[in-house]
Amino acid sequence: MPTLSRPGPLCLFLWASLAATAVANSADWTNADLETAATLRDRAMAGTDAFEHVSSLVTEVGPRSAGSAGDAAAVRWGLNTLGTLGFSQVHAQDVLVPHWVRGTAEVSIVSPFPQPLVATSLGGSIGTSEDGIDAAVVAVDSLEALKALPATAVNGKIVFIDQRMERTRDGSGYGATVPIRSQGPSDAADLGALALVIRSVGTSSDRIAHTGGLNYRSDAPRIPAFALSNPDADLLARQIKSSKTVHLHLKSTARELPPAWSANVIGEIPGGALANEIVLLAAHLDSWDLAQGAVDDGAGVAIVMEAARLISKSGRKPARTIRVVLFANEEFGLSGAREYARQSAAELDRHVLAFEADIGQGPVWKLESRVAPEALPAVSQIFKVLEPLKIESGMNEASGGSDIRPLREAGVPILELALDATNYFDIHHTANDTLAKIDAKTLDQSVAAYTVAAWLAATKQGSFGRIAKSE
Amino acid sequence: MPTLSRPGPLCLFLWASLAATAVANSADWTNADLETAATLRDRAMAGTDAFEHVSSLVTEVGPRSAGSAGDAAAVRWGLNTLGTLGFSQVHAQDVLVPHWVRGTAEVSIVSPFPQPLVATSLGGSIGTSEDGIDAAVVAVDSLEALKALPATAVNGKIVFIDQRMERTRDGSGYGATVPIRSQGPSDAADLGALALVIRSVGTSSDRIAHTGGLNYRSDAPRIPAFALSNPDADLLARQIKSSKTVHLHLKSTARELPPAWSANVIGEIPGGALANEIVLLAAHLDSWDLAQGAVDDGAGVAIVMEAARLISKSGRKPARTIRVVLFANEEFGLSGAREYARQSAAELDRHVLAFEADIGQGPVWKLESRVAPEALPAVSQIFKVLEPLKIESGMNEASGGSDIRPLREAGVPILELALDATNYFDIHHTANDTLAKIDAKTLDQSVAAYTVAAWLAATKQGSFGRIAKSE
Repeated sequence: MPTLSRPGPLCLFLWASLAATAVANSADWTNADLETAATLRDRAMAGTDAFEHVSSLVTEVGPRSAGSAGDAAAVRWGLNTLGTLGFSQVHAQDVLVPHWVRGTAEVSIVSPFPQPLVATSLGGSIGTSEDGIDAAVVAVDSLEALKALPATAVNGKIVFIDQRMERTRDGSGYGATVPIRSQGPSDAADLGALALVIRSVGTSSDRIAHTGGLNYRSDAPRIPAFALSNPDADLLARQIKSSKTVHLHLKSTARELPPAWSANVIGEIPGGALANEIVLLAAHLDSWDLAQGAVDDGAGVAIVMEAARLISKSGRKPARTIRVVLFANEEFGLSGAREYARQSAAELDRHVLAFEADIGQGPVWKLESRVAPEALPAVSQIFKVLEPLKIESGMNEASGGSDIRPLREAGVPILELALDATNYFDIHHTANDTLAKIDAKTLDQSVAAYTVAAWLAATKQGSFGRIAKSE
Repeated sequence: MPTLSRPGPLCLFLWASLAATAVANSADWTNADLETAATLRDRAMAGTDAFEHVSSLVTEVGPRSAGSAGDAAAVRWGLNTLGTLGFSQVHAQDVLVPHWVRGTAEVSIVSPFPQPLVATSLGGSIGTSEDGIDAAVVAVDSLEALKALPATAVNGKIVFIDQRMERTRDGSGYGATVPIRSQGPSDAADLGALALVIRSVGTSSDRIAHTGGLNYRSDAPRIPAFALSNPDADLLARQIKSSKTVHLHLKSTARELPPAWSANVIGEIPGGALANEIVLLAAHLDSWDLAQGAVDDGAGVAIVMEAARLISKSGRKPARTIRVVLFANEEFGLSGAREYARQSAAELDRHVLAFEADIGQGPVWKLESRVAPEALPAVSQIFKVLEPLKIESGMNEASGGSDIRPLREAGVPILELALDATNYFDIHHTANDTLAKIDAKTLDQSVAAYTVAAWLAATKQGSFGRIAKSE
């Protein structure tokens, strides 16, 4: 899932003032196209096949981390499913992906009160020796507090970063704590730590650890890194509170294998008059190895596949081509996103709009955008069709999904149909990411919103302009 | 936790009619004793130390299955804590306990769609060979359906019993499904099964398997037995639905070690005029190995210890002695309960009343009893003091807790302060049984109820009679 940022207040005023003019500015769509959008919305709310798509992926594939046998099975599933659903131009775009293997992780308190802890390796972590690591713990409550420590306080110890992620609807609590996971290992290694243990970046009180990718800096030693479930982090914190010196034992068989071939899976609903222009709907096909990958990102895969399918079955042909891309390896380095952007570099000006589904099942609660200013009335018109789904209007500073970031950075306009993240981080990157956490009706609402946005983007008269390029 | 049964409707009428006479029949207690009961109740509701007791047990001991190092640490913790809290006659009553070791369990679907499943061995299960077991699955939806199968349909296969436990406030859904776990292994072995896999006897949709003891019949072959988490049972069921032939791979290193010494931990609040008469408050000190044992039965331990402590600090001395017994090995054979009953056989007539806390933190929602008919007005009086805690009145057919069953069967009257089981079976017998699932205010209400009942039982003028002996 993407980095989540909060936009500033300025654009809200801009948008609000433009919204008032949206009705007058009907040059963007014919009445028939607007009516089709409302019809598609209402049909989706009456029931879609999205739950069945997730169920199929979870049942027939399950875990599918980059480079694994499950990853290969997922590519096959994606090709078969898009073909069966009637997509055109169904094909695999080869992507070389890293192949990290989690192995087993053991974390236990050795003293003062011996207990096993539920933990998992952070994605990309190196393993330990066969003997593991035994050392005293130095605890801090933030990455900043760690960086403020002298090396003498950390050298030869295990660092424990004990900061709790905040539960929010927009997922901003994730952005605030994820640097602990991504940067913490190298920051701890800078000070001579033997290993890093973090409180899971996640909001669950269940005894399931949250994994997720780390980023080793090239100028820091690589040390093993682990996440504890929240209740186990609580336990460790209580022992530290009652006894200043706590010793941990850590062991991990995590390791990196040679890179492997995976693929972006691509299929299209062909356009008519503007068939060479593309509206891109994104999700990612990979999941973390310990999850069934129903929520992250089976839900997103189902939402974008079903949205496109509903349009193809509507009896009306969109002017532009709707391209569904199920990206390879979002979780551990955005390999598929980079490869797609690279291979599409020459045709990015034909990508009229892109949006992704990668924060779970929904519901969609807010529409954000990042389009040229002259296209904001069109966004307001899209919002008017979405509003009955209990969706709020947002800013024109959307960050979009991780997989479409290279497109956004190259100037492709994006929408963000923000999925409700309140409970998402209870199961994000955990074994608890299963079909049991998916509600079919909630998923239908998300499909309805994505269908409306895809249809209107593919039928709009005139483009969404281009946005400023960035890095 | 105990077997939960539903009483018949007859006794409700009996009790209701007697309740009306309760106020008139005040011969059971002095006004001062009734006032003390109300004071104790209100003080407990204002806040107790019960949460700290659970926290201490979970932090300093944690998992404590019969015969383990944690079990020994728990006995030490119990003796130290009862001593520190000011109990008298604090001592350990030695109990020989079985020592089963879970080891690791691996369950995976081999075909048609390979996936690992989250599973655990049932308590007491034998392990497999190092190669494990690979076989086709035969699925049934109940123990009855299994028994109805011909041996030819089961022989050489792995049986999967896929019956979902119902969520209920009184925990009756547990009683309805627990035979799958306890009797299923031998019933499957009778028909030639190689192993048994069950849907967890538990209500959680989280990906955590519920363990619990099995009972091998002496006349049936012993086969390995496993529980799947509910989402994993869902997954297996979906693969079975889509493909008639599903193969599983099972492996377990579970094994039984020689019996070990554990102990019931006992402490008393001394009585006055009737000091040789005993009111027994029970909980169990052991937990399953994979849990921290906060809910099962750290909560019960805290409730009964704190109830007795509050009475000892009340400034008034109960007529009878209040004896707290923290039983050894409830989970895997009731070793402590049997040993206590054996050693107390000669003094059971001095046991005036017994009750246990072993269905989690509460709140207490119903008062049941099993006392002599002439003592029912006294039960009604106890109920009157409890009623402000939002507690309902129940029947005179209480089954009580597992640890006091031998006492009940020997004729000792019992109370049952029924703890709300609605969410209890989400975490019962799982790794998810942690302090994060305990709410201090809820625990205080349970302490209030147990304190009232203990005080009134220890000050009642005249006994609760004797109940019919049973087996």
